Amino acid sequence: MSSRRAEAFSDGVFAVAITVLVFNLLEIGSHGLGSHPYHVLLAAWPNYFAYAVSFLTIGIMWINHHAMFGAITLVDRRLLIINLVALMGVVAIPFPTALVAEQLATGTAAGGRAAAVAYGVVMIAISIGYSAIWMYIASHLRQLGAVRDLEVPHVANLQFSAGLFGYIAATLIAAFVSGLVALIIYGLLALYYMFEHLPGRGDSGADAALAGPDSPAEP
Amino acid sequence: MSSRRAEAFSDGVFAVAITVLVFNLLEIGSHGLGSHPYHVLLAAWPNYFAYAVSFLTIGIMWINHHAMFGAITLVDRRLLIINLVALMGVVAIPFPTALVAEQLATGTAAGGRAAAVAYGVVMIAISIGYSAIWMYIASHLRQLGAVRDLEVPHVANLQFSAGLFGYIAATLIAAFVSGLVALIIYGLLALYYMFEHLPGRGDSGADAALAGPDSPAEP
Amino acid sequence: MSSRRAEAFSDGVFAVAITVLVFNLLEIGSHGLGSHPYHVLLAAWPNYFAYAVSFLTIGIMWINHHAMFGAITLVDRRLLIINLVALMGVVAIPFPTALVAEQLATGTAAGGRAAAVAYGVVMIAISIGYSAIWMYIASHLRQLGAVRDLEVPHVANLQFSAGLFGYIAATLIAAFVSGLVALIIYGLLALYYMFEHLPGRGDSGADAALAGPDSPAEP
Amino acid sequence: MSSRRAEAFSDGVFAVAITVLVFNLLEIGSHGLGSHPYHVLLAAWPNYFAYAVSFLTIGIMWINHHAMFGAITLVDRRLLIINLVALMGVVAIPFPTALVAEQLATGTAAGGRAAAVAYGVVMIAISIGYSAIWMYIASHLRQLGAVRDLEVPHVANLQFSAGLFGYIAATLIAAFVSGLVALIIYGLLALYYMFEHLPGRGDSGADAALAGPDSPAEP
Repeated sequence: MSSRRAEAFSDGVFAVAITVLVFNLLEIGSHGLGSHPYHVLLAAWPNYFAYAVSFLTIGIMWINHHAMFGAITLVDRRLLIINLVALMGVVAIPFPTALVAEQLATGTAAGGRAAAVAYGVVMIAISIGYSAIWMYIASHLRQLGAVRDLEVPHVANLQFSAGLFGYIAATLIAAFVSGLVALIIYGLLALYYMFEHLPGRGDSGADAALAGPDSPAEP
Repeated sequence: MSSRRAEAFSDGVFAVAITVLVFNLLEIGSHGLGSHPYHVLLAAWPNYFAYAVSFLTIGIMWINHHAMFGAITLVDRRLLIINLVALMGVVAIPFPTALVAEQLATGTAAGGRAAAVAYGVVMIAISIGYSAIWMYIASHLRQLGAVRDLEVPHVANLQFSAGLFGYIAATLIAAFVSGLVALIIYGLLALYYMFEHLPGRGDSGADAALAGPDSPAEP
Repeated sequence: MSSRRAEAFSDGVFAVAITVLVFNLLEIGSHGLGSHPYHVLLAAWPNYFAYAVSFLTIGIMWINHHAMFGAITLVDRRLLIINLVALMGVVAIPFPTALVAEQLATGTAAGGRAAAVAYGVVMIAISIGYSAIWMYIASHLRQLGAVRDLEVPHVANLQFSAGLFGYIAATLIAAFVSGLVALIIYGLLALYYMFEHLPGRGDSGADAALAGPDSPAEP
Repeated sequence: MSSRRAEAFSDGVFAVAITVLVFNLLEIGSHGLGSHPYHVLLAAWPNYFAYAVSFLTIGIMWINHHAMFGAITLVDRRLLIINLVALMGVVAIPFPTALVAEQLATGTAAGGRAAAVAYGVVMIAISIGYSAIWMYIASHLRQLGAVRDLEVPHVANLQFSAGLFGYIAATLIAAFVSGLVALIIYGLLALYYMFEHLPGRGDSGADAALAGPDSPAEP
């Protein structure tokens, strides 16, 4: 199967999953705004914060998903299945997002920690899924019709390991320290992944890896 | 109409339907996590299990949908309508998924069996719909601009029959034995469909059938 | 703008709108199945029936939408806006669907009639929107890069008028006779539109109109 | 990365976000229609009005999004991230839409004003996001593979500024005058953006800017 179809389906899943996050906001004020409406709206700050963190996280995951699939032109059934398992984690993100928002807004400290642990567990599962996709692609380049020599695998492996380590550390902080601190770290991890590949740091090499099949051949 | 448009629309429907499954999870903890938050989160295991089973099931259905439509380049109105009826079943999957999860978590044994029967009935309907799509394609190859000789129909017919039989058997087990056992069997059926076409068993022939119009011509 | 982009966006909207119908089903058994689970599941028949009617209706609307846009290769801003207004009606369909299902299942006869009137009003609005799309296309063929001479407009106008008349009649029946009877008529109207263009009745001419830009040129 | 992928993902997000607006309608009559069903349905007019305003607003945003991305053929990671932040605002629209509808239907005047302020704040954020996308595109034309000389930036800057000013003014009216008046202005702003680019006013120049990469080269 052409990798374009798998990408189109994955795009659709990412687009819906990222939009489902708004249901987390739709509950704000669903029982009315009372006599202090601005207060009610502002008191829901954990919902807005969790929405932003998860939105950017799913967005970055989409960008990286394309960077991975942009390296190949074909997919086989095994890659489709690995991809499906990784997407199963991505689609689940709105669930721990809602948990964290609700617990930080109205729950106990213990509830907030448990919710942030659930968030971290989903992130760890997704990190493992992405590593599996990348390892499968990197070891089946010819079979998957790779568009160019891929010298990036080592760097990529390091990055995936760093991400996995970051999410494990944040989950431990969630479990033993504070749900809010963990959520802030989840947000920082998304920002890190966001800017990590910018030309300013990794320069044109990283950009070319991003550009995918449409990019001009590198020297 | 080009089959690409029908595939794109179907892709969108699959992508949304698979993502709607997360609403099944969003209800966990929606009334708070209480004083034993981890307990509440873990007690929702039927939700996670049903989510995984249905996610993989819809995912496999998407893969097989492409394998079928990948064999042709055109669709006519009759095929669009048969496809629509099959999609009507796929879109409904989140409903029995929620039923099963809720009944296994908090319902009675009789409720769990009835919910698993509802799940099975939807699966049987989808199996019939897929068989109808395949039979229509196999008998209108020229008209639908088939990209190659299709010698697979017999194998495919057998597989569809096997799937239908599996879902009927699981539904009977749901009705008379146990909802949980039936759900496990639904999961195993998804796994079976997942790995059944892998080169390790069926070798390159199955892969080529999957590859669709983009695949190099087989000898 | 290429008409392909407008079609892709419309496809996405149709795909989500058709899938949102399942939320109508998700409420069944959300308060448990009680001691007579099969009875609860069967008593929700208006939900299943309304789901099927609306699913087929949106599906047919998608097919006809493609038939219209398949005739052209470009869109201008005015057509985009007319299309947007028509989609505003399509996206709303899950709302009267839920109303009708709920009123037929648990409401009064008067409630059922009012719900079916709401359904009819949405359908009438969509019929008008589709007529507007078609009239705009038919009167700007050159400007919109029509792919072929379009001699169908008169037939199409007749069909749109027939559909509009059908929905007005059904809405009157909803208002003064019965919500259930009206829902059955809405279903029959969808079936009529479904089979109306089949070669068996209208022959290859209708099929060619459906086939769009990818179809071989007719004699 | 080709700008087509980013557009396809954004299209998906727009399509889902615009469809989520129907959940705002799904709550009407969810507690039954009582003995005066038409009265209940008509009393929900703020829901219908807010649905229409937000539907047209998201629709226009989609059209303008394409006009901007139609000018280029490539995207880099920075543009993807700016786009993601702008989409974060678009996806949030159903939230203040629901707030405004509910407050106008059943809330206090103060609640209605606060809800309309929330609506305006989201619109202002999106306006800033769109300006950022446009400024980035206008200043990286060569790098992003612009399809033609873009002489429009000044006009576009003026338009974005006008839109931003309009939303700020409407938000102030929301805060100090009336939520309903503000909602009417939000609707008028959408209509303004809708018709502002029509040939009747700006003629073929505006149309060409809309047409994107597929348009014939201008003299």
